Formats: sequence, structure tokens, C-alpha cells
Amino acid sequence: MSLFISFEGPDGSGKTTQILLLRAALEERGLHVLATREPGGTRIGNAVRTLVLSPEYAEMSQRTEALLYVAARAQIVYEVILPALAEGAVVLCDRYGDSTLAYQGYGHALPLDDLRAMNAFATGGLQPDMTLYLDINVAAGLSRIPASEHDRLEANTLAFHEAVRAGYHVLAQADPVRWLILDGAQPIATLHTQILARVLQALAAHA
Amino acid sequence: MSLFISFEGPDGSGKTTQILLLRAALEERGLHVLATREPGGTRIGNAVRTLVLSPEYAEMSQRTEALLYVAARAQIVYEVILPALAEGAVVLCDRYGDSTLAYQGYGHALPLDDLRAMNAFATGGLQPDMTLYLDINVAAGLSRIPASEHDRLEANTLAFHEAVRAGYHVLAQADPVRWLILDGAQPIATLHTQILARVLQALAAHA
Repeated sequence: MSLFISFEGPDGSGKTTQILLLRAALEERGLHVLATREPGGTRIGNAVRTLVLSPEYAEMSQRTEALLYVAARAQIVYEVILPALAEGAVVLCDRYGDSTLAYQGYGHALPLDDLRAMNAFATGGLQPDMTLYLDINVAAGLSRIPASEHDRLEANTLAFHEAVRAGYHVLAQADPVRWLILDGAQPIATLHTQILARVLQALAAHA
Repeated sequence: MSLFISFEGPDGSGKTTQILLLRAALEERGLHVLATREPGGTRIGNAVRTLVLSPEYAEMSQRTEALLYVAARAQIVYEVILPALAEGAVVLCDRYGDSTLAYQGYGHALPLDDLRAMNAFATGGLQPDMTLYLDINVAAGLSRIPASEHDRLEANTLAFHEAVRAGYHVLAQADPVRWLILDGAQPIATLHTQILARVLQALAAHA
């Protein structure tokens, strides 16, 4: 009864909060839940995260950045996600392959086919069963993040974030079975109720 | 009159020594030479090198490792190699894309087509004009490296290093125009003389 759910969305869309709430609700129901995040989620991923998000490395090329994100993904799949799924866990992952397509592909205009191929190499083809996309107006999302926490990624222009958001919509519309678009501007509890209902439904269908 | 030369070979084949000698010989002739190495050669590459070669991260998956090497390559191409070639330099690079094919492809049996595609993404398709392959018996090569300097890579089995060496031969034979196979067991000065002659010949042809 394992299930792999990724959370996607612009920065500040509320993914982290919703993952915490969903995890608690599923654990209350006796399910084995593993919540993790990208990049990070492993020692190696955290080292990569430090490197890729540090404003100190402003000379980083966009291709280097893309490859580092994908490297962190390879490690989290190998070390965390695959073992958890093998144990029958519900895996909640804060960002996954689609973030690379949205940010590096649609945002930075790197070739989508190359990024897809790198994702497939890194993950051995592992796709989420369900992708919950928390949509939010770019300015509203960014305003939720304190300026002191703006890392290099979030220092990109508004136009970049708009392109990322538009890219997410293209991705979601291309695969409506896997993707669920949710309005991230709703109250936290409302959004949580919607998410929980859909996840319980998927678990029932999966069982 | 720029020229891009990569040096390949098993660990302990003498690449570093030959690069130093070649660089000095070319500089004596008034040429602008840039010598660099992979991974490393940039701040970001050095951070990646530390991560990938540290025995502390023994849990690193082979795919993560491959992606990290390729990420370091993307950075060195962008930051060091392309600008130097644009200035007309002779660029000497200690390892390049073929190392990924030999070590991760032939050594660890990761899919060669994926690795080639990742190299192409990282480098924008930039290939060396000439690849000097210093061939050496695996045991002889490893014996040249002090045990205290054995990093995670060199802690692989002899069978791994044999597969890497065999892979280098396949790569070299598939593209005899770019590759030059040299006997790394020869005396240092003899090898240097051979290398210098071939590089001067290529520079003359290029001019």
C-alpha cells in the first residue's frame, strides 16, 4: 500500500505546511509516512543544497545548477524514497523531477528533453503516483517568504517566477491523471481538507 | 590558434606530470596555456570534488556520483575552458568527458548513451581537439599512488580499474583522429618528447 506523492508549486505556495498537516493526518490513521524534501533529504543532498542555494556561488552556470539538483534527486531516490516505498510507506516529497522541468526548463529555458532524460537517469524512471500542485500568484507566494530567507533561487526576477508558474500549468495539463491543481491561496485548513480527501481516495483505490 | 587537449588515463598514469611538462614547454615557445583539471578547476568544481571524493560519503549512489562529475564539468567548461579558448589559449585539461564514460560507463556499467547525453548537455557539445590517453597497467598505475592519497575512487577493486582501462581502449579505437594512445610506462622524458611533438604538429596544422 505504498504511495508516492510529490508536492510542487512556486516558492511560498505552502507545500511545507501542507506536507506537515498531511503527514500528521495519515499517521493518525496508522499509516507509515515518510516526508522528505529536495534538494536535501540526505546528507549528500544537503551538501548539494548548501552549494546550489548559497549566494556565495553566484558564478554557477544554469547547467551546473540543473545537474546538481538532479544529482541530489538521484541520491534521495536511492537512499530514501525507494527503500520507503519497498516498506509500504506513503512517501511525501517536497519537490521532485517536475521542479527541474519547471525551474530549469521553463524558467531558465534549458532544453526540456535533456532535463527529462537526466531525471530518468537519476530516478531510474520512478515517477510519483500523484503530484499535488499548489498554485499561487507569484507575488503572493514570494511575499510569504521573509526577505532574510531569500536564497539565490528566490532572488530571480518576477518574470522568471511567472515562467516557472506557467510551466507548471503546462506540465499539469499534459498529465491530468497524475497532477492535481490546487488553489494555494485558500486557507490552510481548507486546502488540507481537500488534499487529505484526495490522498485517502488514492489510498483506497490503491489498496 | 586555440587548441583544447584532454588527458585521460587510469589513476597513476602520469597525466599530472605530463601536463606540467607540456605546459612549460609550450609557454617557453610563447604560447598562452591554461592547465586545469576535473573535477575541480573552479570553486564550485572543488566543492563538488570534495563531496564526490570524500570517503565520508560512502552511501553515494553511482548515479549521484556520475551526475556530480558532470556538474563539475558543466562549470569548468562555462567558467574556464570556453573563455580560455575564446582568448586563443591552448587548454590542457586533466580528465574530461571521456573519464565519465570510462569510469561510470565501462567501470560501473551505467548506460553509456545516458552519460554521453549528460556530457553533451553539460558541455554544450564541446569536444577536445585532441585526447592524449596515457595507458598503463592497472597495478603499475595504482602502485604509483601513495596509499595515504587513495580516495574513494581509487579504493575500487582491481576488476573495476581493468574495466575502466578496457573502456578507454574501446573509446580510443572508436575515434582514432581525436585520440592518441601513449605508453604511460615509458620514462617521463621520453613520453614528454612524444607528447610535445604531437601537440606542436597539431598546433602547426591548426595555425
